Amino acid sequence: MQRLAADADRLPPYRWGALEDAITLPQATLALLRRLLGRGERLPPPLPVAAAAISEEALAGGALEALRAALGKEGVDCDPASRLAHARGMSSEDLLLARYGAAVDAPDAVLAPRSHEQVLSVLSLCAQERIAVVPSGGRTSVVGALAARRAGFSGLIALDLRAMDALLQIDEQSASATFEPGVVGAAAEAALGRRGYTLGHFPQSLARATIGGFAATRSAGQASTGYGRFDQNVLSLRIATPRGELAIGRAPRSSAGPDLRELFLGSEGALGVITAVRLGVRRAPAQERYEGYLLPDFDTGLELARELSQSGAPPMLVRVSDQLETLAGSGPLPGTEVHGGGGSLAIIGHAGDRAQVRAGAAAAAKLTQTLGGRALPGAGERWRAERYMAPHLRDALLDAGYFAETLETAAFWSDLAGPEGLYERVRSALVEALTQGGARALVMCHVSHLYPAGASLYFTAICRVEEGTLQRWQAARRAAGAAIAAVGGTISHHHGIGTYHRAALADEIGPLGVQLLRAMKSSLDPQGIMSPGVLIP
Amino acid sequence: MQRLAADADRLPPYRWGALEDAITLPQATLALLRRLLGRGERLPPPLPVAAAAISEEALAGGALEALRAALGKEGVDCDPASRLAHARGMSSEDLLLARYGAAVDAPDAVLAPRSHEQVLSVLSLCAQERIAVVPSGGRTSVVGALAARRAGFSGLIALDLRAMDALLQIDEQSASATFEPGVVGAAAEAALGRRGYTLGHFPQSLARATIGGFAATRSAGQASTGYGRFDQNVLSLRIATPRGELAIGRAPRSSAGPDLRELFLGSEGALGVITAVRLGVRRAPAQERYEGYLLPDFDTGLELARELSQSGAPPMLVRVSDQLETLAGSGPLPGTEVHGGGGSLAIIGHAGDRAQVRAGAAAAAKLTQTLGGRALPGAGERWRAERYMAPHLRDALLDAGYFAETLETAAFWSDLAGPEGLYERVRSALVEALTQGGARALVMCHVSHLYPAGASLYFTAICRVEEGTLQRWQAARRAAGAAIAAVGGTISHHHGIGTYHRAALADEIGPLGVQLLRAMKSSLDPQGIMSPGVLIP
Repeated sequence: MQRLAADADRLPPYRWGALEDAITLPQATLALLRRLLGRGERLPPPLPVAAAAISEEALAGGALEALRAALGKEGVDCDPASRLAHARGMSSEDLLLARYGAAVDAPDAVLAPRSHEQVLSVLSLCAQERIAVVPSGGRTSVVGALAARRAGFSGLIALDLRAMDALLQIDEQSASATFEPGVVGAAAEAALGRRGYTLGHFPQSLARATIGGFAATRSAGQASTGYGRFDQNVLSLRIATPRGELAIGRAPRSSAGPDLRELFLGSEGALGVITAVRLGVRRAPAQERYEGYLLPDFDTGLELARELSQSGAPPMLVRVSDQLETLAGSGPLPGTEVHGGGGSLAIIGHAGDRAQVRAGAAAAAKLTQTLGGRALPGAGERWRAERYMAPHLRDALLDAGYFAETLETAAFWSDLAGPEGLYERVRSALVEALTQGGARALVMCHVSHLYPAGASLYFTAICRVEEGTLQRWQAARRAAGAAIAAVGGTISHHHGIGTYHRAALADEIGPLGVQLLRAMKSSLDPQGIMSPGVLIP
Repeated sequence: MQRLAADADRLPPYRWGALEDAITLPQATLALLRRLLGRGERLPPPLPVAAAAISEEALAGGALEALRAALGKEGVDCDPASRLAHARGMSSEDLLLARYGAAVDAPDAVLAPRSHEQVLSVLSLCAQERIAVVPSGGRTSVVGALAARRAGFSGLIALDLRAMDALLQIDEQSASATFEPGVVGAAAEAALGRRGYTLGHFPQSLARATIGGFAATRSAGQASTGYGRFDQNVLSLRIATPRGELAIGRAPRSSAGPDLRELFLGSEGALGVITAVRLGVRRAPAQERYEGYLLPDFDTGLELARELSQSGAPPMLVRVSDQLETLAGSGPLPGTEVHGGGGSLAIIGHAGDRAQVRAGAAAAAKLTQTLGGRALPGAGERWRAERYMAPHLRDALLDAGYFAETLETAAFWSDLAGPEGLYERVRSALVEALTQGGARALVMCHVSHLYPAGASLYFTAICRVEEGTLQRWQAARRAAGAAIAAVGGTISHHHGIGTYHRAALADEIGPLGVQLLRAMKSSLDPQGIMSPGVLIP
């Protein structure tokens, strides 16, 4: 057993990177934003606890004593700064509110269990005392999954799983590795890398989010087209619930009834706590290569993506930007490069041995050429260099007074394109809602995370922070959800449901689906203490 | 919408093929069996209804009238021959009992709905009247999934979905096809083949089993190593339950909570009725090639399989027989070929374009050579020619007085080999139980259905039909289940749970897993009318 403590523990709340690593927007970008959206007013950094309005600690003394007895004194933290840090996640809404010091219902205590057994004890105790429990890892939720409801409970605690940070086992024969839930993604990848393996899971949140969180939210990394989503690589789970424990997954696949792993993947803390995850790993590729192409327009870009996904040997990574995102740079937010005159930027990544990479790149080059595209030398490597920068850019945008938020969905290919397709309808819905009352907004998109049958669309919206920005964004999110439902797409491809999309989930799975989720929750959590208000409609 | 009626409707019950197509065992095989197991006594064919002891029809006249009103007269069949045909499945136990005319609890009527709406009506009506309902397709269950419990209900009906046999849609853009549940596998494959597509799903049961059955049992075909299991290719499901309907699957993958598709995959009729299935399809490969190799022993064969599964580009099909199965021929049952002197027969199939097939075959040849294997010219093509013969051979063996049955499991690679591994422990358990009291038995095995993290083991046992054969087999099945549990494997990789493995399922998922399954069932089927006694422990 190897502990994998990570730097993420020392990062500040409500800002992606350390303050000393903050980037500033290039002057050209700032000038462009001012021209398109108006001048932003510089925002203060997230407020320290002394200035923030957090709820009063409400936990009864007896309960607190019992929790200390279960976890040791060092496992129960009632410090206001810790409580504030666990009150919200990392949506742009969360970050904005943190900078304004809006009042927040913080948990009464932050608990740090160190074992499966300690988690079981805490849950049993909290069920008895009717204390609501919000399990967390890197707290990078962008869908409000940390904002559980306190109403009806005698207290609210955060269950910080980051002290459960062990790599429990590498099984080389079975190409698998078993982690405790609190291992940060980057630390897991580094530990596997030292043995010549990779998880192939590279989300933007890699530096902060944890293995347990990836599983509980069905995370998908940038390279999911080749390596699969996180949930597709989960082999076994150990789960603690208020009613006891489960150990599921005795084989890669089984026909022993419904696949219970698939109930806890995506359960977002509402059904129990994932205390160990066995994952498929693979040999790290000898080579990676990223290339950029410019396609005539986004329709052609979607066509390229679809053909790559159905080629039988899709690239490791494909993302194709619409015209605005292409204009805004090679990332999802305004950068420095403008590929003049529109078009659609495709980034295609290949991994494998030298021959595989060469063959994949040749096939992609041929296909893009057939579709009227041209190579953009250096664009692939530039994307790679900036691949984890978006959350830092978001900090810099907020610093400069601009609100940037993302929203994603997925559907079958035949529902994506065209005037009544998912792309056009969601884009229009966002633009319309964000420009109410004459406000200005930029809405851009890329297609990524490809499957032979469909793909994800990832939208980014940017507006100036001003009166009503947050309300307009919330209305835009609802409007986008309605557009997604109208086309028949899913409300989330990899961000999850949290508190933001509960109503949309109810629409997506229908009354009987809701009833089924509630029945599962009642069975495992009859007092309803697990992340109340999260996920389950 | 295109109806795909299939020949399977006209096949006899309790025998795989038509009597006129029956094969006889080669004299050499018969002689070998006599030498190893003793002389079998020829068995009669399955008894016709006049001679079979079937339960009396118990359905109240009012209920029958209401069902006729819902489905039309032609949709309600109370003919004793139909009722007998729906009383059992296709396990060797079922076939043997049918030949002996053992008394059987037949359903009171066979209902043939023609639409999702008719299924909903029937379920609602049966819930009201407390009539147990057993959904079925090809009735090829080998785990007793058709033998639902009547106790506590006012009647028992079979819901024969084969009249719902339409190909509803082919969506070429999304590489998907949507079927009604009653389409027979071979008919689906033929219809797709006419459009240049394949499902890639080739189980032994292809000629009889249906799309709905494949989904409800998590079927895996012979080529699952390359094409994936059936459940992995399910994109969307439409479900009818006693409480109403669900439509699930709006995208290939989603992070909108637990994946509800995965509850109905493997639900074996106990949670509801699958009334439509959207499946991923792919372009039919330009080429297929099957090759045979002889490895020094089964341990080396397992090593070959593992290395192929983790190569990053596994073959479409891999199956490696242990020494007894290798001696017995290239199929799972005694055939004509003996590859003298033991060793382990590997069949490896490649599919794709010419270059892919050539590259795959070259890689496999190189690896087998490294492991001390040698090519067996013609063995691959011979296996291909005989790939659907096993159930016909089973008929012929029963005709000749020999009982042959199979049992399968799966686990992670590190649990498969070695003296305490899954192979050795299950094999020993079967042999020990089957040879109680001096009886004789052959137990053989192959590894197939590979994943990077593990694989399936498929055991075949053959004994002479004599006093106590059935009881010994049932004891052997339980002993094998205990051995599987001890090693930590799953009780079924692709046959399902049915009535045979319910106790083992309870052990596999634990008390909380059982509670969860029961909660789901109660939510969708509060009267418990759906296949009572099947699946849910």
